[in-house]
Amino acid sequence: MGQALSTHARVDPVFCTRRRVSFRHSGMTKHSPLAPSRFPVLPAIAGVRVATTRAGVRYKGRTDVMLAEFARGTQVAGVFTRSLTASAPVAWCRCAVRGGSARALIVNSGNANAFTGQAGLDAVERTATAVARRARCRVGEVIVASTGVIGEALPDERIRRALDKLHAGLAPGAWNSAAKAIMTTDTFPKGATREATIDGVPVKLAGIAKGSGMIAPDMATMLAFLFTDARLPAPVLASLLRRAARRSFNSITVDSDTSTSDSCVLFATGKARRHARIERAGDPQLREFRAALDALMIDLAQQVVRDGEGAQKFVTITVSGAASEQAARRIGLAIGNSPLVKTAISGEDPNWGRIVMAVGKAGERASRDRLAIAIGGNPVAVDGQVAPDYVEAEAAEHMKGREIDIAVDVGIGRGRATVWTCDLTHGYIEINADYRS
Amino acid sequence: MGQALSTHARVDPVFCTRRRVSFRHSGMTKHSPLAPSRFPVLPAIAGVRVATTRAGVRYKGRTDVMLAEFARGTQVAGVFTRSLTASAPVAWCRCAVRGGSARALIVNSGNANAFTGQAGLDAVERTATAVARRARCRVGEVIVASTGVIGEALPDERIRRALDKLHAGLAPGAWNSAAKAIMTTDTFPKGATREATIDGVPVKLAGIAKGSGMIAPDMATMLAFLFTDARLPAPVLASLLRRAARRSFNSITVDSDTSTSDSCVLFATGKARRHARIERAGDPQLREFRAALDALMIDLAQQVVRDGEGAQKFVTITVSGAASEQAARRIGLAIGNSPLVKTAISGEDPNWGRIVMAVGKAGERASRDRLAIAIGGNPVAVDGQVAPDYVEAEAAEHMKGREIDIAVDVGIGRGRATVWTCDLTHGYIEINADYRS
Repeated sequence: MGQALSTHARVDPVFCTRRRVSFRHSGMTKHSPLAPSRFPVLPAIAGVRVATTRAGVRYKGRTDVMLAEFARGTQVAGVFTRSLTASAPVAWCRCAVRGGSARALIVNSGNANAFTGQAGLDAVERTATAVARRARCRVGEVIVASTGVIGEALPDERIRRALDKLHAGLAPGAWNSAAKAIMTTDTFPKGATREATIDGVPVKLAGIAKGSGMIAPDMATMLAFLFTDARLPAPVLASLLRRAARRSFNSITVDSDTSTSDSCVLFATGKARRHARIERAGDPQLREFRAALDALMIDLAQQVVRDGEGAQKFVTITVSGAASEQAARRIGLAIGNSPLVKTAISGEDPNWGRIVMAVGKAGERASRDRLAIAIGGNPVAVDGQVAPDYVEAEAAEHMKGREIDIAVDVGIGRGRATVWTCDLTHGYIEINADYRS
Repeated sequence: MGQALSTHARVDPVFCTRRRVSFRHSGMTKHSPLAPSRFPVLPAIAGVRVATTRAGVRYKGRTDVMLAEFARGTQVAGVFTRSLTASAPVAWCRCAVRGGSARALIVNSGNANAFTGQAGLDAVERTATAVARRARCRVGEVIVASTGVIGEALPDERIRRALDKLHAGLAPGAWNSAAKAIMTTDTFPKGATREATIDGVPVKLAGIAKGSGMIAPDMATMLAFLFTDARLPAPVLASLLRRAARRSFNSITVDSDTSTSDSCVLFATGKARRHARIERAGDPQLREFRAALDALMIDLAQQVVRDGEGAQKFVTITVSGAASEQAARRIGLAIGNSPLVKTAISGEDPNWGRIVMAVGKAGERASRDRLAIAIGGNPVAVDGQVAPDYVEAEAAEHMKGREIDIAVDVGIGRGRATVWTCDLTHGYIEINADYRS
C-alpha cells in the first residue's frame, strides 16, 4: 500500500487516485444537485488583497494555498471549533485573534495539521513567521488555517516555498480563486456578498467558505473567511460574529460530526469612506450591518449544507413555541441530526412519527399535547395528534422536491430558530465507506 | 393510497406488504449476519407464566401480543425512555412501578400507542383494567407496553378480545414465543439467562428483549423484560436495575435516535427457595446477583446491537483514562454515534482520524498529547500522534472481521466504560429510506 489510509479523514475528491469510487469521486467532480447555478460576483474589499497558488501540499494539479494581506489597522475576530482535539492552526488562531489586529491570512487545503503534536505547532509558527516577514507585520497578526487529512505531518516547507510568488501575485477581488483553493471534498466553491450602510456610509461585505462533510454545529469541518471595509474595533467584531455564527454556521448540520479545524474569521479593514466611530455591537448605527453580516453568513452556511456529502435535498427546519431561541435551535438540530428523519427525507416519506421522536429526544421542553408539525405548509399534526384533515398525498408531493420545509411548534413559549440540513443518502455511505473497491 | 405512510415510524418487516424493498423486507426476514446461532434455552422462572397469541393489532398471521402473570407478592422496578414525547404506556408504567408490586404484564407489537393523546391513555387504562380483572389484581399492578407505528389509534379492543384465550393459555417458560411476539423490525428473537446464589440459595434470571432501529442510549426503541425468582423488594430492584441499565442498554447505540416507548422492567417473584431478607442493593449477599443481572442485560443489549438495522459489523468500544466512568461512556458513545466512524467501519477502513474527531466532540476532558488508540489490539496512535511502529495492514486486517474492537485511552484519569454499536451501511439507508420502489 502506498499511503496510510487511516489518515485520510478528508481527502480530495478529484486528485486522490485511490479510495474514491462514488459518483463524485470517479475522476470528475460532479457538482451537488443542490449547488447554486454559479459563483456570485463578489466585489473587491478595500484593504484586502488575495492570491492563490499550487503548492502541492498534498493535491497535485490544483491550487491549494491562499494568501490574503490586509491594510494596516485591520481588526479581526474569530470563532473556532469546540473540539477538544482541535488542530494546531486553531490553537494558534485562538491566541492570535486575542490581539485584535490582523495583517495576513494563510490557508492550505489537503492537510489539516491536526493530531500532529508539537511538530504541528512548530509548523504553524514557521509558516506564520515566514508570512509575517513578507507582510511586514508581527507574527501574531498572521491568521493560519489548514484543512484536509488528519494525523499527517504538514509539509510546511511547500507552503513557505510558495510565499514569494503568492506575495507578488496579491490582487484585490480574486475571490473565486480563493474559494477554490481552500476546497477539499467540496463540489463547488462558496462565496457570498452583502452591502450595508453605517452612519449613512456604504460598506461592503464579502465572504468565502468551504466544507461538506463532518459538518455539525460548533463549527464543523468548515472554514469561513469574511471581509469588510467597515471600520469596527475587534471587540465589536467579536460580538457581531458570535451572534451571527449562532444563527448560521452553528445552525447547520450535515452529519452531526464536529471537526478539529473549524474556523470562522472576520476581518474589517476600515478602508470604506469614514463613518462614525462604533464602540459597541448594540449601536443602532449597526442595525443594517448586523443584518447584512447575518445574511452573508447564513448564505454561506446554506451553501455548505447544499454541498453536504451525498445530499439530494436541502431541508429547512423551523422550530417555534420553544422555551427560548436556544431551546428551539437544539430541537431543530435534534431533528436535523436524526438519521431516521434524514433517511425518511431521502425516501421522500413524510414520516412525522420520526419528527415526534426527534423532538422527544432533544432534551428541551415540549408539550406533547400541543405539538404541531407542518410539512411543506401542510398541517400534519395538531394538538399532539394527527391533524384531522391531514391528506398525506399533499405532504408526500412536497417531499418529492429538492427543497423541503419542516415546521414544528412545540407549544411551550416564544422561542424560535431555523436550522438547515440535508438528507442522508446512499451517496453519503458511498463517499465515506466505499473506499475500497 | 391505502394506509397513511407517515405513521409507519416502525413497521413490521414481514407482513407489511408495501414500503419494504430491502433484503430484509422482501417477503422473508433474513437474520442479521451478527445474530447468535440460536435462541438460548431459558429456564422457567417460578411464579411467572406466559402466553402469546395472534390478536391482529396490525400484523396478520403472526403472534403480536404477550401476557405474563406473576405470583402474588411479585415486586417490580422499571426504567423508561427519557423522551419528552413518551408513549401512553410509558406514562402509565412510570406510575405503576411506583407501587412496587406487579401481577401482570401485557405487551403488543405493531402499534406503539405513541402520539395518540388522551385516546391513547384511555386505551391503556381499558387494557390494564381488562387484564386486572382476569389476573384478580389491582389495575395499578398491570404493566403495559406497546411497540410499533407511532400516531395511530391503538385498536385495544383486539387486545382485550384476546385476553380470555391468553389467560387460559398461561404456562411457565414459553420464552421463545414471548420474545417473538414482541418483535417489530427485529430479525431474530432475543433472550438470555443467568444464575446466581443469594445467601447460598440458587436463584434464576431470564430476560427477553426487542429492538433494532431507533436505538440509542436512554432506552431507545427497545423493550426488555427481566424475570427472577429471587425475593427482593422493589427499591432494591430499582437500584440494581438503574445500575445495570447504565452498563447495558444505556451503553449501546445503533443510530443515536431515542424512541418514545423504551421500557425495561424487572420482576422478582420471590418464589425461589427462601433466602435471607435483602433490604439494600449494596448488600454483600447480592454480589453474585448484581453481576448476573449486569451480564444478563449486557447480553440482551448486545443482541439488540447485533440486530441493528443494516448492521454488518459488531463494534466494541472501550474507553479508558477518562475523568470518570460517565465521561468514558460519553466519549465511547460519541465515537459509536459518529456517522463518519460508523461508515469507516463499514468500509473496513482503520480511519483513526475520525476517532480523534469523535473524541474531540464528546465534550469530555481528553489529553490531546496523551491520546492513544488501538484497533484490534494494534496500537494506532500513541501520545497524541501516529504510533511510531504503526503498520496499517494489521489494523486493516482486523477491520475485515465481523467483530471490531476499538480501544481509546484519553490520558486524563481512571474512568473506564465499554459501549457497543454497529456499522452504518447501505442496508440502514435501504431499510429507512428506500420505502418507495
